[in-house]
Amino acid sequence: MANQQRLAGIFTPNLVPYDHKGEINESELRRYIDWLIERGVHGLYPNGSTGEFTRFTVEERRRIVSIIADQTRGRVPILAGAAEANVKETLAACEYYAGLGVRAVAIVAPFYYKLSPASVYAYFKEIGRNTPVDVTLYNIPMFASPIDVPTVQRLSEECERIVAIKDSSGEIPHMIRMIRAVRPNRPDFAFLTGWDAALMPMILVGCDGGTNASSGVVPEITRKLYDLTMAQRLDEARKVQYDLVGLFDTMIYSAEFPDGFRAAVQLRGFNMGVGRQPLSAEQQTDLAALSRSLQCMLAEHGFTNEPVGGCPPGGNVNTAEVGEIVQKVLAELKRRGLM
Amino acid sequence: MANQQRLAGIFTPNLVPYDHKGEINESELRRYIDWLIERGVHGLYPNGSTGEFTRFTVEERRRIVSIIADQTRGRVPILAGAAEANVKETLAACEYYAGLGVRAVAIVAPFYYKLSPASVYAYFKEIGRNTPVDVTLYNIPMFASPIDVPTVQRLSEECERIVAIKDSSGEIPHMIRMIRAVRPNRPDFAFLTGWDAALMPMILVGCDGGTNASSGVVPEITRKLYDLTMAQRLDEARKVQYDLVGLFDTMIYSAEFPDGFRAAVQLRGFNMGVGRQPLSAEQQTDLAALSRSLQCMLAEHGFTNEPVGGCPPGGNVNTAEVGEIVQKVLAELKRRGLM
Amino acid sequence: MANQQRLAGIFTPNLVPYDHKGEINESELRRYIDWLIERGVHGLYPNGSTGEFTRFTVEERRRIVSIIADQTRGRVPILAGAAEANVKETLAACEYYAGLGVRAVAIVAPFYYKLSPASVYAYFKEIGRNTPVDVTLYNIPMFASPIDVPTVQRLSEECERIVAIKDSSGEIPHMIRMIRAVRPNRPDFAFLTGWDAALMPMILVGCDGGTNASSGVVPEITRKLYDLTMAQRLDEARKVQYDLVGLFDTMIYSAEFPDGFRAAVQLRGFNMGVGRQPLSAEQQTDLAALSRSLQCMLAEHGFTNEPVGGCPPGGNVNTAEVGEIVQKVLAELKRRGLM
Amino acid sequence: MANQQRLAGIFTPNLVPYDHKGEINESELRRYIDWLIERGVHGLYPNGSTGEFTRFTVEERRRIVSIIADQTRGRVPILAGAAEANVKETLAACEYYAGLGVRAVAIVAPFYYKLSPASVYAYFKEIGRNTPVDVTLYNIPMFASPIDVPTVQRLSEECERIVAIKDSSGEIPHMIRMIRAVRPNRPDFAFLTGWDAALMPMILVGCDGGTNASSGVVPEITRKLYDLTMAQRLDEARKVQYDLVGLFDTMIYSAEFPDGFRAAVQLRGFNMGVGRQPLSAEQQTDLAALSRSLQCMLAEHGFTNEPVGGCPPGGNVNTAEVGEIVQKVLAELKRRGLM
Repeated sequence: MANQQRLAGIFTPNLVPYDHKGEINESELRRYIDWLIERGVHGLYPNGSTGEFTRFTVEERRRIVSIIADQTRGRVPILAGAAEANVKETLAACEYYAGLGVRAVAIVAPFYYKLSPASVYAYFKEIGRNTPVDVTLYNIPMFASPIDVPTVQRLSEECERIVAIKDSSGEIPHMIRMIRAVRPNRPDFAFLTGWDAALMPMILVGCDGGTNASSGVVPEITRKLYDLTMAQRLDEARKVQYDLVGLFDTMIYSAEFPDGFRAAVQLRGFNMGVGRQPLSAEQQTDLAALSRSLQCMLAEHGFTNEPVGGCPPGGNVNTAEVGEIVQKVLAELKRRGLM
Repeated sequence: MANQQRLAGIFTPNLVPYDHKGEINESELRRYIDWLIERGVHGLYPNGSTGEFTRFTVEERRRIVSIIADQTRGRVPILAGAAEANVKETLAACEYYAGLGVRAVAIVAPFYYKLSPASVYAYFKEIGRNTPVDVTLYNIPMFASPIDVPTVQRLSEECERIVAIKDSSGEIPHMIRMIRAVRPNRPDFAFLTGWDAALMPMILVGCDGGTNASSGVVPEITRKLYDLTMAQRLDEARKVQYDLVGLFDTMIYSAEFPDGFRAAVQLRGFNMGVGRQPLSAEQQTDLAALSRSLQCMLAEHGFTNEPVGGCPPGGNVNTAEVGEIVQKVLAELKRRGLM
Repeated sequence: MANQQRLAGIFTPNLVPYDHKGEINESELRRYIDWLIERGVHGLYPNGSTGEFTRFTVEERRRIVSIIADQTRGRVPILAGAAEANVKETLAACEYYAGLGVRAVAIVAPFYYKLSPASVYAYFKEIGRNTPVDVTLYNIPMFASPIDVPTVQRLSEECERIVAIKDSSGEIPHMIRMIRAVRPNRPDFAFLTGWDAALMPMILVGCDGGTNASSGVVPEITRKLYDLTMAQRLDEARKVQYDLVGLFDTMIYSAEFPDGFRAAVQLRGFNMGVGRQPLSAEQQTDLAALSRSLQCMLAEHGFTNEPVGGCPPGGNVNTAEVGEIVQKVLAELKRRGLM
Repeated sequence: MANQQRLAGIFTPNLVPYDHKGEINESELRRYIDWLIERGVHGLYPNGSTGEFTRFTVEERRRIVSIIADQTRGRVPILAGAAEANVKETLAACEYYAGLGVRAVAIVAPFYYKLSPASVYAYFKEIGRNTPVDVTLYNIPMFASPIDVPTVQRLSEECERIVAIKDSSGEIPHMIRMIRAVRPNRPDFAFLTGWDAALMPMILVGCDGGTNASSGVVPEITRKLYDLTMAQRLDEARKVQYDLVGLFDTMIYSAEFPDGFRAAVQLRGFNMGVGRQPLSAEQQTDLAALSRSLQCMLAEHGFTNEPVGGCPPGGNVNTAEVGEIVQKVLAELKRRGLM
């Protein structure tokens, strides 16, 4: 509800483990949720991009939130991704998730068609008028129609039940523009960043927290980064942020999203199964190599053992390797139209 | 089946009329289908982008094809859009549409996530291996992961059931590159263009036809353009193509897609209802103005009466108006990342 | 002058040979110009993008046109690139080139800063008002501020001395929009395409000719393509256009522009020297490999001998090789922001 | 020299005043330089993008640095933009500026042609090998070929005279990636940001300073922001950064760059003359309106008087006005391909 406290902290956009038939692995999902909560994540965020919401059926999306709500039993708040085919279907999902007791839903702007700001406004206005549960706008311009600053401002002024925005653009000036435009009139409105590589500076310019895929892999690190930054222990925070950039870049750019994150969670001890998006033979080989690199990175932090055969001295800061990964990063950024 | 004749001609990506509650208006859809067939379209293409496939539920998509198959009764072939949440669901749709006797299905590359060529290949390979019905690849890089030339070539060589590509990029050199790469080994493979503003030159460089949204509005004109071009009556064809660019630009760039096309079909005498994507008050006003412009354009061809109050002299070739529309076109092209 | 005939045909954007010190090789340039004219190019176009105008000093640019005017002695018209640092300097260049008797100048829109249509209009308007020689607008949105359709229309109506546009976007619908907007009021205004991969369909939709880099390498082929297309011998023209796409793609995407064209002209018997943009060791190796591929392509048409060691059977239509080149094409298109 | 201290602080990319004939106004330039130094800028940066280097002739660019070096008389270091038509000409400029005693030169990556990382590397390597003066790389991907992270890393390791990078991308993760890749091996290498809207967080993640166009308008504010941030007085710094975003956005997005900055410097009491890029009548009107908005913003800080007729209550934080400006911002971002 709008009189509740501002959303804050790290909400983990959790992955979904599959069984050998490619179906939701419920017991592993429950075990994973417990593990995340025990490691200090402030909340959970099922049906996000990391959670591959587009690859599930309507019924499966509901079942995922239902399992998580049941397993969480109120220990942490849930932000449930609720986007469906149209306004009517999305509102039906909101209703269902409200019944499960989630703290809020997150709704991505319409995708496939790239809509204008006027249409994005009209879409969320219709939802904001009819939702039975608090709504977080979800801006991810690399995948969906962008939600621009005037639209966020207008919706925040007209719709009390719209209480936050999750922004995955990663652009600091954009975040500043949103906060400048909204906070004076809606001090209860929260700003969450979905771009792990900028988490520390985002918080320093005024963000309330993040929905960061890395927190599903190394919740210890994202929690530490959040706490150090909030405490303004900047030199320590900066060091953690730099390390996180290395890990995040490797996971996000060296494989099809979110496969790098899936490979890393597997290394943390969960049986993730095989993803629903088929991989070519070459991609499977690449993913095995990536998994080895990730294992060295995680081993360096004591989160797992080194792979058989060991890791290069200096852990993951091998210059050539970094250079190579960075080149992959750049190629990916270009491919996704971000450069 | 792969031993059938190459797909050719204009397949109309039909719109879906809604009733006053926003549900599929079955009787109006049946009337519209008859009207299209009587005006000479070579085939129908339900569940395309024009048909707003993403705004329907799984069940509704099936119902649309089912109605059309029933109404068509074999008079023209059907190309049914069959993309669903994942490979398994998509194959289930293929199975269903095969049972309805469609000529082929059309499957758009995965969207939301922007996938690499390797993933796009793996996705279609899995489908190509298991489909019970001929498959048309659907490349629409402005909305979905692009299907690049080497991927088309490889899939055409490895999967007999993949028999065509529909390309909506509108780029002639890209079309030439695809035909060069595929036709020598797969003379039965068809190339269809989804970009009405380049229909004539696309056919002249070797395309087999198109899936053109304009053909749902002015089937008389697209059929005439196709016939004149095939007959190499170039001067006449060029004139029709120029006219079509004016009409197409107005419909595609002056409103959110496919609302301009919906407004125009309404003018041809069909009750299209209100679209599922909400419009702001300002957008509704714009759409009314657009409808008036379209009415003048259609009246000039004798397809409808002039609006009350009449049209500017010289019909739609009023220079200032064209300039204005072109500026909208450009703004839109930029917004969609095409310029 | 505005009462002269419309510009038409293929104007070759000629390269400039360097000597061993990286200076303009005058005698080789003169020999190259004669060779081009003998092979039927309709005109010459020094100081274009192909001619690396940005890599020369003001004085060198003038010297290049001066040499070419002297060597041509009126056999073919010259279109001289005249863009300089600002309007005043550009007009001074126009004056100079007018004195050399060029048919017209070509002026690219301001680059580095990406200007709005209003600024592009103001820039050309100022030039159009003061130029002593006919002006061709030069639109190349991948390198310079775009010249949009309303700007072309307005300039064509207000400035008699602006007599043509050279468009290198390669987009057919864009060309159609320009011709529709301008030709009714300015039947003397010419439209030239700078995108070789679409030359045939561009002419078929109404273009007057082209300024095509390939014509500096294989003037025999571009002339033949132009003649066949003008004669509406479409099946023959299409075949030549397909071949040209293969050659053009290889030259433009397999090396930094215009190095692929330089390598090819070297194979035609000219000593091109070393370019002014330094190459890394790896790039030099790549260029040698490219040169070998090009030699096979040219040998197939009888324009040169096969390289030592011979060519793969089937000449350049080796499928794997084509696939590889196409992948380079795509990577390049992405890098240049065209996909 | 490489053994000097790391570049740090705010280097002002100064504008150049014109006289009534559009020539460099030397006396006003000298007065402006003194004014900037008196207000605490750490250095000067002539011939940057803000300084419109592309709109001057070779001789004018030299004269600008010469005047500034003479006027500065060592009070602050000078970073002189030295990019010319090719490597040879650029090195000649380096030589000249070295003779004037500049601290370093700044060289933008080649522009017009959009070069690959390999070519950008080869270009700077050739310069780094031969320069007589320290070199700052200048990365501004919206205008010139991008300098990617592996290229910066490689050049920093191979060229001692390359001592810094000025990055105008404004992307925090990109800055972190560069610092991670370079700093371990080159602790003397400096990182400067050219994106004023992210100055505070850039410094907080490790940047050494900035070359910020705003510092030519409100040197008092950028200096204060720098000092507060360096002192980790974050709440105060954040407030100043937010204000700066408002001013910066207005100057950069409401007019053609750098006209908004020119208008603002005029309001600070300098006679800037008329720019070299012509403006349409409509643009001139817009610029007058912008000037009025800027005057209110500057008056709020006591930097000038309110315009005749006064300012809206609440100074520049009028919501509707902000909304309007933000929409212009967004349109501009799209036009420049940044969204």
